[in-house]
Amino acid sequence: MNQEALKSIPKAEVLIEALPYMRNYTGKYFVIKYGGQAMVSPELMESVILDMILLKYIGVKPVLIHGGGKEVNQVMNKLGKEALFVNGLRVTDDETMEIVEMVLNGKINQHIVSLFNQHGGRSVGFSGRDGQILQARRMEPQVVNGNPEDKVDLGRVGEIIQVNPELINTVSDNGYIPVISSIASGINGESLNINADHAAGEVAVSLKAEKLIVLTDVEGIYRVTDNEQQFISSVSRGEIRAMIMNGEISGGMIPKVESCLMGLDGGVKRTHIVDGRVPHSLILEIFTDAGIGTMVTQ
Amino acid sequence: MNQEALKSIPKAEVLIEALPYMRNYTGKYFVIKYGGQAMVSPELMESVILDMILLKYIGVKPVLIHGGGKEVNQVMNKLGKEALFVNGLRVTDDETMEIVEMVLNGKINQHIVSLFNQHGGRSVGFSGRDGQILQARRMEPQVVNGNPEDKVDLGRVGEIIQVNPELINTVSDNGYIPVISSIASGINGESLNINADHAAGEVAVSLKAEKLIVLTDVEGIYRVTDNEQQFISSVSRGEIRAMIMNGEISGGMIPKVESCLMGLDGGVKRTHIVDGRVPHSLILEIFTDAGIGTMVTQ
Amino acid sequence: MNQEALKSIPKAEVLIEALPYMRNYTGKYFVIKYGGQAMVSPELMESVILDMILLKYIGVKPVLIHGGGKEVNQVMNKLGKEALFVNGLRVTDDETMEIVEMVLNGKINQHIVSLFNQHGGRSVGFSGRDGQILQARRMEPQVVNGNPEDKVDLGRVGEIIQVNPELINTVSDNGYIPVISSIASGINGESLNINADHAAGEVAVSLKAEKLIVLTDVEGIYRVTDNEQQFISSVSRGEIRAMIMNGEISGGMIPKVESCLMGLDGGVKRTHIVDGRVPHSLILEIFTDAGIGTMVTQ
Amino acid sequence: MNQEALKSIPKAEVLIEALPYMRNYTGKYFVIKYGGQAMVSPELMESVILDMILLKYIGVKPVLIHGGGKEVNQVMNKLGKEALFVNGLRVTDDETMEIVEMVLNGKINQHIVSLFNQHGGRSVGFSGRDGQILQARRMEPQVVNGNPEDKVDLGRVGEIIQVNPELINTVSDNGYIPVISSIASGINGESLNINADHAAGEVAVSLKAEKLIVLTDVEGIYRVTDNEQQFISSVSRGEIRAMIMNGEISGGMIPKVESCLMGLDGGVKRTHIVDGRVPHSLILEIFTDAGIGTMVTQ
Amino acid sequence: MNQEALKSIPKAEVLIEALPYMRNYTGKYFVIKYGGQAMVSPELMESVILDMILLKYIGVKPVLIHGGGKEVNQVMNKLGKEALFVNGLRVTDDETMEIVEMVLNGKINQHIVSLFNQHGGRSVGFSGRDGQILQARRMEPQVVNGNPEDKVDLGRVGEIIQVNPELINTVSDNGYIPVISSIASGINGESLNINADHAAGEVAVSLKAEKLIVLTDVEGIYRVTDNEQQFISSVSRGEIRAMIMNGEISGGMIPKVESCLMGLDGGVKRTHIVDGRVPHSLILEIFTDAGIGTMVTQ
Amino acid sequence: MNQEALKSIPKAEVLIEALPYMRNYTGKYFVIKYGGQAMVSPELMESVILDMILLKYIGVKPVLIHGGGKEVNQVMNKLGKEALFVNGLRVTDDETMEIVEMVLNGKINQHIVSLFNQHGGRSVGFSGRDGQILQARRMEPQVVNGNPEDKVDLGRVGEIIQVNPELINTVSDNGYIPVISSIASGINGESLNINADHAAGEVAVSLKAEKLIVLTDVEGIYRVTDNEQQFISSVSRGEIRAMIMNGEISGGMIPKVESCLMGLDGGVKRTHIVDGRVPHSLILEIFTDAGIGTMVTQ
Repeated sequence: MNQEALKSIPKAEVLIEALPYMRNYTGKYFVIKYGGQAMVSPELMESVILDMILLKYIGVKPVLIHGGGKEVNQVMNKLGKEALFVNGLRVTDDETMEIVEMVLNGKINQHIVSLFNQHGGRSVGFSGRDGQILQARRMEPQVVNGNPEDKVDLGRVGEIIQVNPELINTVSDNGYIPVISSIASGINGESLNINADHAAGEVAVSLKAEKLIVLTDVEGIYRVTDNEQQFISSVSRGEIRAMIMNGEISGGMIPKVESCLMGLDGGVKRTHIVDGRVPHSLILEIFTDAGIGTMVTQ
Repeated sequence: MNQEALKSIPKAEVLIEALPYMRNYTGKYFVIKYGGQAMVSPELMESVILDMILLKYIGVKPVLIHGGGKEVNQVMNKLGKEALFVNGLRVTDDETMEIVEMVLNGKINQHIVSLFNQHGGRSVGFSGRDGQILQARRMEPQVVNGNPEDKVDLGRVGEIIQVNPELINTVSDNGYIPVISSIASGINGESLNINADHAAGEVAVSLKAEKLIVLTDVEGIYRVTDNEQQFISSVSRGEIRAMIMNGEISGGMIPKVESCLMGLDGGVKRTHIVDGRVPHSLILEIFTDAGIGTMVTQ
Repeated sequence: MNQEALKSIPKAEVLIEALPYMRNYTGKYFVIKYGGQAMVSPELMESVILDMILLKYIGVKPVLIHGGGKEVNQVMNKLGKEALFVNGLRVTDDETMEIVEMVLNGKINQHIVSLFNQHGGRSVGFSGRDGQILQARRMEPQVVNGNPEDKVDLGRVGEIIQVNPELINTVSDNGYIPVISSIASGINGESLNINADHAAGEVAVSLKAEKLIVLTDVEGIYRVTDNEQQFISSVSRGEIRAMIMNGEISGGMIPKVESCLMGLDGGVKRTHIVDGRVPHSLILEIFTDAGIGTMVTQ
Repeated sequence: MNQEALKSIPKAEVLIEALPYMRNYTGKYFVIKYGGQAMVSPELMESVILDMILLKYIGVKPVLIHGGGKEVNQVMNKLGKEALFVNGLRVTDDETMEIVEMVLNGKINQHIVSLFNQHGGRSVGFSGRDGQILQARRMEPQVVNGNPEDKVDLGRVGEIIQVNPELINTVSDNGYIPVISSIASGINGESLNINADHAAGEVAVSLKAEKLIVLTDVEGIYRVTDNEQQFISSVSRGEIRAMIMNGEISGGMIPKVESCLMGLDGGVKRTHIVDGRVPHSLILEIFTDAGIGTMVTQ
Repeated sequence: MNQEALKSIPKAEVLIEALPYMRNYTGKYFVIKYGGQAMVSPELMESVILDMILLKYIGVKPVLIHGGGKEVNQVMNKLGKEALFVNGLRVTDDETMEIVEMVLNGKINQHIVSLFNQHGGRSVGFSGRDGQILQARRMEPQVVNGNPEDKVDLGRVGEIIQVNPELINTVSDNGYIPVISSIASGINGESLNINADHAAGEVAVSLKAEKLIVLTDVEGIYRVTDNEQQFISSVSRGEIRAMIMNGEISGGMIPKVESCLMGLDGGVKRTHIVDGRVPHSLILEIFTDAGIGTMVTQ
Repeated sequence: MNQEALKSIPKAEVLIEALPYMRNYTGKYFVIKYGGQAMVSPELMESVILDMILLKYIGVKPVLIHGGGKEVNQVMNKLGKEALFVNGLRVTDDETMEIVEMVLNGKINQHIVSLFNQHGGRSVGFSGRDGQILQARRMEPQVVNGNPEDKVDLGRVGEIIQVNPELINTVSDNGYIPVISSIASGINGESLNINADHAAGEVAVSLKAEKLIVLTDVEGIYRVTDNEQQFISSVSRGEIRAMIMNGEISGGMIPKVESCLMGLDGGVKRTHIVDGRVPHSLILEIFTDAGIGTMVTQ
């Protein structure tokens, strides 16, 4: 007997352990928000890519949604253009929008697609304008300084009014993993900048996804009690809403939990906020009962 | 963060290691001969069943062929009927054939199907007469004692003349794992007893299988040199034929290597003789480069 | 002119007479319960087989359900094991169950499939465990001697809780006639012995069958009035229930009428109890207005 | 038991006798030429219609081709127009062609369709111009009186240059019986009068038909020896060609045997000349080994 | 550069102008009633045919319904038979019905099909009896002279009770334009004469048509005020009903507006009465906002 | 009558004139190379977009391939990076490649998709890396100054070794117009810069395109004789090769005619070099016999 091969028996057992999870998820959509913050190293990006290819092989239909704020800032910087934010939203003039599109579609999106290619996954990159996947309207001018008179027009920033999932279905059913940038088509056909967390929530709803997973660069959600932080493994919609109201959740975490709430409101079964810095966090979240991040449930 | 889940990272890595193998084998048929001898314990049977369900989930189309000589002997024994063999072939009168069919189709086949059911696999049991999957003619009377005049009629023992794979394709494409007993339909519709190794070889050819795997209760093939046994990981068709001629391969191993040769002659890509007593030997053989048994190649 | 052929004109006219019935039944399921008692001679079995092949050719989708109590008794006898019944139900210990499965799946089922093969029909044999067609739970212990304290555990005897018709649909739509034994998969995957009449009724309901036909070895149902027997051609659900209550129907006929009632309750259009000893009784029942047996209607 | 039904057992046996023929012909095209001469009585027309509906129910794909010379003559007569023939071919001026089309498409074709409707068959009438099923060119002027200088232009008479079977396939596969008149589309789109026997031969070839059956008003082909007529049940292509050369076959029988020869040359398996005056001659020809008419074979 | 081609730029612009209309109508049914009166010249017929072929190429599914009263009268005349009308309905004895069928199916229908063929359209002619597209019952005897006792039996005149659109769907989806004559199948399978305007209305409803267009030989509907005629471009169902009641609409226009009302009542989106004497009136009606005739709307 | 609508009759006639061209091209692929030079004004871009949407509506399957050298230069300029060319090929270091990808995929590609969206076309943008549509290897270092020792490495410049058209087929068959940038996936998954004319030629071959149309900013190909320029409407492969050899064709026109030659060598029916500055040049080329540019034929 080949003694060397015997050493692999424990590995075989791991594959077998995954069987019940495969059974549950085969044929179902997983929408994964993968943002700039979670793309911290080539190794971790590769880990996310491999996890998604694995999901595809075992019958899950993964869909990746990405933004890319950090890279946009870098390119703006190179071009001597300053990034401006109001209420956490990028003020996006036409020139900035052009840079956003170039960076998201021409750089980040294609980089992700090439990673899939290199690891043997069949993947296709879309902007949200392709096949009018994401349709949006311009956001209302933002009130600043608490003064209703004092409003700032955000320019080319939009909020989603409709998702057309046909193109996603077409390529998913033909064996590809769709990679979609958070850029939408406005009412006059112009491009609009969309919050990627929100885009992921809306796409998950339109696909009747089984899971929405928001990969980020924090460990998940914590509850602070008596100066002590306690990690939350599972939390309900109601609790999350209360935590936003009382300020326990704030800043960049807000669009992430909003994405989960959008998903849950629209019929997504389960939503997760997961630390993308942990290797294979996607598989851990899916193939273990506990999971690694915070699950927001009905 | 959920510290417990972190412990599973090495498991996730094992799943990822399997990716290149999934890529190669998705959509292809694996024909697995699983005989009485390899069914040594409930644990090992479960291990084979789980391995095949895993294959099904990752897109492989597994087909199981089984015989069941040992159980036939047991039932004959209970009924006070003696088992008789000529040149290693069971002399099969009508009463014996009835017992063979009851044991193979009513006991072993259904036992395997129930194991699939219990572990969440969708499976369907066939005899080779269902949909006339296996068509055979009666074997010529066997010369015994080296005397051409001295022949013994084997009765209801057949050799395959045609395989009709439509039924296998139909159920495989609809998500089921077919489990087929080595009983064929004779020219007048009567049942005939078929060597299960041969049946596996012929079925593999008719399905243009990627792999034919013969599970047995030995470690594989050894070469004896200078009173030393050396395990053979890989061997060519030509070498195997030489080893049969010079007696290095003999006894029950002969139909097994014949099954491999049939498969290779008919276009099967790779054939393996594998020790079914090793847990998850099926996954080891498939998902490691070395494999655990002996691979017979073109 | 070929004078010989002219003699066949009356035969052609018979074919033409069958046209209106073909028109009515094309594309619809007929579930036929064919039990041990109706299998009285090779000629009559052949007649049933040919009738079903004819149905298949003219566009009907026939499905055969069989039990096999008599043959089970014979084999138990050979093995020196006594058959035991409580309230008409076989007390089925593990060893008996093994015999039941071997006889039903390995002998009767395959014998029927081989008859189809010999007469040019494409057929496939299933146990109710294949593809988990029949799912059952163990029956409650039976009260005996009218004493609620005095209960007998029937062992491996089940009652159906779910029918999964996918496998039947798959093979029927691909041109095969399914032949199904009355063995179910229990909650823990173990095999359970099922009354074949009940199985036929449940399968007919799950297939939304046009007709359920119970072939038996009596002429149908009689009404006894003034010491005179009068054959009943057609009877309603209500009348049948009354006849069971007042004892006019009893013994082995009870599961047969129960099968019809199950079917009618579940939406089967028409149910028939037919004498399998009459040659071509199946065609007579279907292709004549009167029919030969007793029709139980809404 | 229902004694009345027992009387039908012999009828059931007739249905069963037909089984081997059903098996051979299911899924195959039968092209049936049905001409004016064979339409001798309403009863016989009904018999042909019912035979074809029966064929359709048992899986055969029947196609009917018809002409209608006699009815054309009648209508011409009513309109005070004389019918003129040269070498057995109708001289067809534009006015005559209009009458031919009205009678064939508007009267005969629709009469046949209505008969199918009345007997529960789904049928659809076509002229050969619909979907350009029949494409033809004008026939060369005919030499008369054996004088090559003395030619008569036949006007709107054509010979087929192409058959487009798509429309026939479309409706046949959707459950209809196509009924096609022998009118073709000329090179400039004009209608052309076609010999219906020839049309049937060409259509049979384009459909790769299993059988071409020419229904006529004679018993088939006879051989005259010593002033005695002997009916020919089966005859080869070569023999038929010899019989035409030596004048044994002549007149209206010539296009019928030409139709058979066209069919055989183009790959039709078997061709038959059958007496349409015999009730159910179509079924007799198909469902008996001998058949009633003359079979022309390879 | 090819200077000649530059001259075609304005033509290209016309094609582009049609784009928004193509977008709206692709994949939808247009039912076009095309009657004897609108068939005033070969040029205009060609124009209608070309318009319909164009519709087919750009993705619309056109269906043509035709009658043919004028041509019936001509042929009756030739045969010395007088045409008789009661309340505008043709009294149709059996002989007249035979002429109606010959003229409609054998002459007009086939003439239209041949025009499609000549201009490169794939077309197929049907009577309403083919595939039992139109099923009708005989019309009640008509009261004449306002005297309820004084009734005239119209003979073979019917009113539609059911439309079976399967055959239309089958051929439309396979690339053909169906051309249907206004002849129906009666309850006993006999042919019945149907008003073609009514037939068009009912067919449009059964196909859930986007548009019903009645081509006629007047300009549309006019309103007479102060001795002045004013053309009506668009009119509602209610207004049309009022106009019939007060006599503003009368004579042959009544079945045309009834056809529109039937359509609208049954869910057809828009109905149009259009002057078939204007070249390309069909395209004008469809591809311009105003249209050329009178649109009857909800 | 609506007098206004009558004025549109000539427009209707133009639509009808286009019919024969629709008939020829329905269901066939047209590959259109649309480069930076041809994108001279918003009006002309709109004209190209509308022409392609029109093609899609009438059943043609258009595919657009684009490069974008001029815009790359502009962005490089903004970033203070100098563009460097050797033998007409851009020397492409990693930083340049990043700019190429951002400009082609993030700006030009998405701009074209948005134009389709605005004009009602369903479109989807791809880079040649999506679904690995374009696979390439790095180009050999280029000899400069005629000195074989003096070679310059072009960096990330590739030549196509394989085209995978599955993704194009999938989206085309689902109603989308694919827009593909000339960026390929290298052997190690890295992005490579490809000549867009060559990409168009190779894609046309892989799709078995009916036409390859290279839109450019010159009128087509001229022949200079006696100091006179003569426009060439049609030229054969052989003549084109001669013209390249003797220098009549040079500079940027060379990859364009090479694209045509690649296409013709690979089985594309007709190839065209067309002046994109003429409005609706695409429709003119297709829907007129002469066409506006130079057709290169077998």
